[in-house]
Amino acid sequence: MHYMDHNATTPLDPNVWEAMLPYYQYYYANASSRHRLGMQQRDAVESARERIANVLRVEPVQIIFTSGGTEANNLFLYGASYGRMAKSIWVGAYEHPSIMEPAKTLARKEWQFKVIPGQQDGTLDLDAWQIDKTLMKDSIVSAMLVNNETGVIFDIKKLAERLENSGTCLHTDATQAIGKIPVDFEALGVDALTLSAHKCYGPKGIGALVVSKRLDIAPQIIGGGHERGRRSGTEPVPLIVGFAEAVERAEMQREAWVHHVKPLRDKLEHELKSLGAMVFAENTERVANTTYFGFDGIHGDSWVIFLDEGEFAVSSGSACSTHKSVNASSVLQAMGYQRERAETAVRISLGWATTVDAVEALLVLIKQGLTKFSKMPAMYLV
Amino acid sequence: MHYMDHNATTPLDPNVWEAMLPYYQYYYANASSRHRLGMQQRDAVESARERIANVLRVEPVQIIFTSGGTEANNLFLYGASYGRMAKSIWVGAYEHPSIMEPAKTLARKEWQFKVIPGQQDGTLDLDAWQIDKTLMKDSIVSAMLVNNETGVIFDIKKLAERLENSGTCLHTDATQAIGKIPVDFEALGVDALTLSAHKCYGPKGIGALVVSKRLDIAPQIIGGGHERGRRSGTEPVPLIVGFAEAVERAEMQREAWVHHVKPLRDKLEHELKSLGAMVFAENTERVANTTYFGFDGIHGDSWVIFLDEGEFAVSSGSACSTHKSVNASSVLQAMGYQRERAETAVRISLGWATTVDAVEALLVLIKQGLTKFSKMPAMYLV
Repeated sequence: MHYMDHNATTPLDPNVWEAMLPYYQYYYANASSRHRLGMQQRDAVESARERIANVLRVEPVQIIFTSGGTEANNLFLYGASYGRMAKSIWVGAYEHPSIMEPAKTLARKEWQFKVIPGQQDGTLDLDAWQIDKTLMKDSIVSAMLVNNETGVIFDIKKLAERLENSGTCLHTDATQAIGKIPVDFEALGVDALTLSAHKCYGPKGIGALVVSKRLDIAPQIIGGGHERGRRSGTEPVPLIVGFAEAVERAEMQREAWVHHVKPLRDKLEHELKSLGAMVFAENTERVANTTYFGFDGIHGDSWVIFLDEGEFAVSSGSACSTHKSVNASSVLQAMGYQRERAETAVRISLGWATTVDAVEALLVLIKQGLTKFSKMPAMYLV
Repeated sequence: MHYMDHNATTPLDPNVWEAMLPYYQYYYANASSRHRLGMQQRDAVESARERIANVLRVEPVQIIFTSGGTEANNLFLYGASYGRMAKSIWVGAYEHPSIMEPAKTLARKEWQFKVIPGQQDGTLDLDAWQIDKTLMKDSIVSAMLVNNETGVIFDIKKLAERLENSGTCLHTDATQAIGKIPVDFEALGVDALTLSAHKCYGPKGIGALVVSKRLDIAPQIIGGGHERGRRSGTEPVPLIVGFAEAVERAEMQREAWVHHVKPLRDKLEHELKSLGAMVFAENTERVANTTYFGFDGIHGDSWVIFLDEGEFAVSSGSACSTHKSVNASSVLQAMGYQRERAETAVRISLGWATTVDAVEALLVLIKQGLTKFSKMPAMYLV
């Protein structure tokens, strides 16, 4: 099976695995225990924290380990809004449900839920977005750094500059960014940032919220006082060690990764276009591994099933939701596409294991699919 | 190093490790993905859920996976209190901070925080506890099944019977119980129950809240709709698989485990007493691996340091808190002990790897310690 769904999750890097191994096989104490075995675990946690901090160019104390990106996004919105005067929560048009849903929950508690508008090219329309800085004080803004579906890279630095001195708290979800583009906390100008290990060849079940030192985050999981009182629970040391190894390697190998996946993605996209595909956000700055496309009148899910039978694992949109119903991508709808067009979407996200042979085999299969679908009854179609 | 701190955390069972292995090395898709690799992961999650459900004699749908016991305890208190008329929250006198802290947080939001009193033998004083059933409607009660420090087993069934038809919602934290005593959800008569994998030879970073089908739990981490909308976030499949393997094995080997650790613990405790130790909750029904004792005038932390130097890892109380300050056990204080007595406490919790040779070596060391401490300056003493 050819795995081409790396934006949903990545395989574990064998080096990450090797780093985790001793913490599963030999070292197992509780990092809060006061004996030597406990202190070993504590050292492992703090050294991992330091390694991740170095990659992001922050101080270790700014890292709050969580169970993943979803918890980190929830922690930011609930934690930053707590104790603040309820003002506005602005979210990018394309945010993940783990931002959208908590923001909407806060909207039921006096906060105003507002959306930074999207546009056809997949970016946020920062110029059209009318902000009155004097009204932004104490407001919260969250916009992702890279979109999981289109792969579009957002200009968070520009957003931060526009919000400068407005008293806003700005968060970016960098889950899809790490290892794909540079992620420098200070340079982005944000107050908080979300990371997840399993999107960059690390283990599932671990992530982090990175916060500026002046940002007060009310803890959401309490009792024990771990993570300086900001997130309680026995530290999952093997996952934390694997997370650090994954983030460090992803950053170290970032350029090599781009060199590997970009020619493959570009070739794939070029051929898809010549077959008549429409590529979403085609001319926008995107991460190097993602192509998001559709063929007129063919449902994205039909492609997922067809390609699955042909031993290719791809996605028809975001895998982050478990809703089984066939929904058109909300990202594409926020870009202004009609439901019919949005329903054609197929996402192919490449990774280290992708070969040129696999891309060529995929293209052969897609050609067969086009022939097959042209003769199919309407149920396979949009 | 002899590890005798199994109530803080356990080593990973090599069989659990082997069960997890393929999900780290070969199977890695996102369980929400619709291709075959995703469905494989989904199957692994649901089969693990079923295995845990079988052990507890509940239906799979009653299991909500969380990042561990702390999150599960928080989820119960916040999730069950949400949308309820704010009444009373009753907690056992010895509860873990992950119950105590959320309960106190709710106490700042109209709920009344109340404590079921403890007593000298380490049990809850259910008879002295005056409850007016007519006032209990919509109240929440949480009491642990086994105490992490003393090892005392609580009569949760009796508590459930006393609360029958009162309209109360009853939760028990069974983190320290699984694999040590039978844990049967229905037989206990509770509405919710907390589990953690790393206390029963499973991996850190995974646990569960088990709920009765009539109990409505408001989700605390949202966006994605995982766990039937009750806990969002990409499922950490290797951890979930390891959790199921650990719970199943812990239950399967429970009696063998008791046969292994009980004679060792009893021998240890017998000798400690003959050396003049006071054993806490000595004559109370306790789990088979735990002894909690103190020597007059010698600080528990002095023992932890001394035994650590002699290659034994033990605890002076709960490892669940990261507070570095030397605090006397709140559990012992809830049992009515003065601070001076509570500060002497040392917890030794045995496990599969403990041998009779190790117990004998420990006793030799403790005898040396008694001689040493008798000549020491006051700083080592209480």
